[in-house]
Amino acid sequence: MKPVNPMDLVFLLLERRNQPMHVGGLFLVKPPEDAGPTFVKDLVGHVMGYKVPTHPFNQRLVTRGGFQFWTEDEDFDLESHIYHLALPKPGRVRELLALISKLHSALLDRHKPLWEVYVIEGVEGGRIAIYTKIHHSLVDGVSAMRLLERGTTADPDETIVPIWALPKKQRTSQDQNELALDPVRQLLQHAQGAKKMATSAGKVVSEVANSIRRRNKDKDYVSIFQAPRTIFNQRISGSRRFAAQSWSMDRIRAVGKRHGATLNDIVLSMCSAALRRYLIDMDALPEKPLVTMVPMSLRKDDSEGGNQVAVILADLGTHLESPLDRLKSIQGSVNNSKERFSRMNQAESMAYTSAIMTAHGANMALGINPAWQAFNLVVSNVPGADKPRYWNGAVIEGIYPVSIVMDGVALNITLTSYAGNLEFGLIGCQRTVPHLQRFLQYLEEGLAELE
Amino acid sequence: MKPVNPMDLVFLLLERRNQPMHVGGLFLVKPPEDAGPTFVKDLVGHVMGYKVPTHPFNQRLVTRGGFQFWTEDEDFDLESHIYHLALPKPGRVRELLALISKLHSALLDRHKPLWEVYVIEGVEGGRIAIYTKIHHSLVDGVSAMRLLERGTTADPDETIVPIWALPKKQRTSQDQNELALDPVRQLLQHAQGAKKMATSAGKVVSEVANSIRRRNKDKDYVSIFQAPRTIFNQRISGSRRFAAQSWSMDRIRAVGKRHGATLNDIVLSMCSAALRRYLIDMDALPEKPLVTMVPMSLRKDDSEGGNQVAVILADLGTHLESPLDRLKSIQGSVNNSKERFSRMNQAESMAYTSAIMTAHGANMALGINPAWQAFNLVVSNVPGADKPRYWNGAVIEGIYPVSIVMDGVALNITLTSYAGNLEFGLIGCQRTVPHLQRFLQYLEEGLAELE
Repeated sequence: MKPVNPMDLVFLLLERRNQPMHVGGLFLVKPPEDAGPTFVKDLVGHVMGYKVPTHPFNQRLVTRGGFQFWTEDEDFDLESHIYHLALPKPGRVRELLALISKLHSALLDRHKPLWEVYVIEGVEGGRIAIYTKIHHSLVDGVSAMRLLERGTTADPDETIVPIWALPKKQRTSQDQNELALDPVRQLLQHAQGAKKMATSAGKVVSEVANSIRRRNKDKDYVSIFQAPRTIFNQRISGSRRFAAQSWSMDRIRAVGKRHGATLNDIVLSMCSAALRRYLIDMDALPEKPLVTMVPMSLRKDDSEGGNQVAVILADLGTHLESPLDRLKSIQGSVNNSKERFSRMNQAESMAYTSAIMTAHGANMALGINPAWQAFNLVVSNVPGADKPRYWNGAVIEGIYPVSIVMDGVALNITLTSYAGNLEFGLIGCQRTVPHLQRFLQYLEEGLAELE
Repeated sequence: MKPVNPMDLVFLLLERRNQPMHVGGLFLVKPPEDAGPTFVKDLVGHVMGYKVPTHPFNQRLVTRGGFQFWTEDEDFDLESHIYHLALPKPGRVRELLALISKLHSALLDRHKPLWEVYVIEGVEGGRIAIYTKIHHSLVDGVSAMRLLERGTTADPDETIVPIWALPKKQRTSQDQNELALDPVRQLLQHAQGAKKMATSAGKVVSEVANSIRRRNKDKDYVSIFQAPRTIFNQRISGSRRFAAQSWSMDRIRAVGKRHGATLNDIVLSMCSAALRRYLIDMDALPEKPLVTMVPMSLRKDDSEGGNQVAVILADLGTHLESPLDRLKSIQGSVNNSKERFSRMNQAESMAYTSAIMTAHGANMALGINPAWQAFNLVVSNVPGADKPRYWNGAVIEGIYPVSIVMDGVALNITLTSYAGNLEFGLIGCQRTVPHLQRFLQYLEEGLAELE
């Protein structure tokens, strides 16, 4: 029995029935050409043979004297972690997304180790889908994606042990960086601190002063006071809607090259176009531009200091009609942040990041839900695999992150690179962000209008 | 906006993540011979046309000043209440039960009206399954079964409005009796009272005295102090396991006739045999016989007073090896209760019922989980339809209740009569009652050994 560490405990404490704290991943998998009719059944049979899970997949929560501990689950039953389902015909992606939305809405049962895997057959094109959910107290979002990759192979002919039975991996400094990049972890980390110190924290006060001072001098500086109130910044329900789509990285890079912009700038432009169009549909476009929180890895070319991780606030220019003007707003605010970070040392950039997150976190954690938010949504880009991966002979066509939304942040766009594509996973509160599927078309339009 | 009435509020207050308070029904449906390949899709399309729900299917919860109210859901979205799924091949009943177990485990989202319908295609034999879950605060268990029947027809050629769009029905005295028969409602009603008065209530004290006095004189009297401690009387997890099967009423009646027993006596004998066998498997058979709570409708032949509703405690004789000895124990204790009730007036029988439920309810509600319980499980027989029912041209082959388990009562066996069969629905906590499917075979053996 091992006490739950403080950060992981936050995920457990802040979990509510409307705010589950698990992350997910959706794999679209294509069986090999010569697969027989029992391919999926045999595969499920194969993985069901690994009945003994390894750490952390064998850990369940227990409460002793009011404290939470992890303990090995002596009654572990694989059958209550693995589900084999099918989509109704015609098994379109639409039906799949509806099912994933539903599965991602349900709380994990705390009497069992906090993870589940769903193998879903009958996806159009003879494909299968694999949806995995893992509690954020067990693994962080970015590492969860990595873990899912560890459960796959580069070699089409290799069979692989399922993720719950993989030998435990040692943490690397790479993992630590990924951990810091995880926006949900950051938000909650600071929310927890904020709960104690409320809003009187010195860092917040200095950022307030800074925000006011800088805003007057520097049009590209995004302060924590400029995000408008939007429909995304409300209390959320317990129902989720998930949407996912792939875009070619070559295509996005070509658009970037054309406009002298980075891949991330173009991604944010796509998001900006989609948000603008969506909010116009809903008759809810604010006069001021939406602000998104973006966790970023900032490498200084002239240093050997490795990665420096920070959170930036990007002005999405959603109030502007012209796609080029919106791109300029995004580039201006992103470059401003990057330059600012490049002048800061590590401690300073961490302090800045902390100030943003603490201010927002306090708002969220205290549950006061006022007419203020440091940012309107989260857009997070998680690095993925370059080359195609395989799962017991079946090629993985797509990998989509399924993240977390919270009271006050009802929309999260997480993307990952995979085999030449950028794979977008959008998760929203079903009630607060209706018709989330429309976003996919609007993201495409946002890319097309810059081509 | 209408305040939630006190009884319905209890279901909301006592709901926890490990103890969802919704009831369900599973229909097994066979499309007509001439059904085309799009039959299910068309049917789902048909019901999805009824986008405006009627009371209570349009009501959602809101909290104002700390109080709970029902209000009409202005943003009602049928898509987030109706799910269309499929079973993976071969689509055996085993796969269906696993899926229903999972669906029944998930909490309903309190931001929406508290009900969901799942249409599941691909069940073996060309059948479809329809699983409906409704929160117990919206309808009581027995009425839920009635409601599901109202959504079907006696005429195979008739189409019918889906249940969520049916016009509201006036309550009848029949409904009131059914309401009183609902064991979950009874348990919680008294649990709530018990929370206030703890265990010092006068009724309990007098039942205690009675129990001690009677036990010495009357071997068939089942007191609230004789139920042994069993594995079923523990805190439960949030995961469920559901099992279901039909038995011919003619067959059960023939067995009853052979032994001079009622249909209910034989049902309890089946349960007794199954429990004994199951507990021997688990090396957990107590030396004392298990006691089951059975809600019963007691008609006095010489009165015009209509139904009189009471809860009886039946001694299942699980410690006895001989099936005939077990049947004798059951008949003895059931007849003793019936005779006792027949000598009581309505007030007295209500007081007795209340004493049982209050004592047990206090134990449950206070969460003290001591080595005491008034009974070990609930066996409830809900009256159903005599003749086959149809749903938009498809014949309903089976109707199985999916009930509620609670801390301290980890197993519930609810059955209903339908078209010449008795349809058993067993719901258990997956962790506390593993291998629930075995019960089905053991119930069959329990019937066969009396033939």
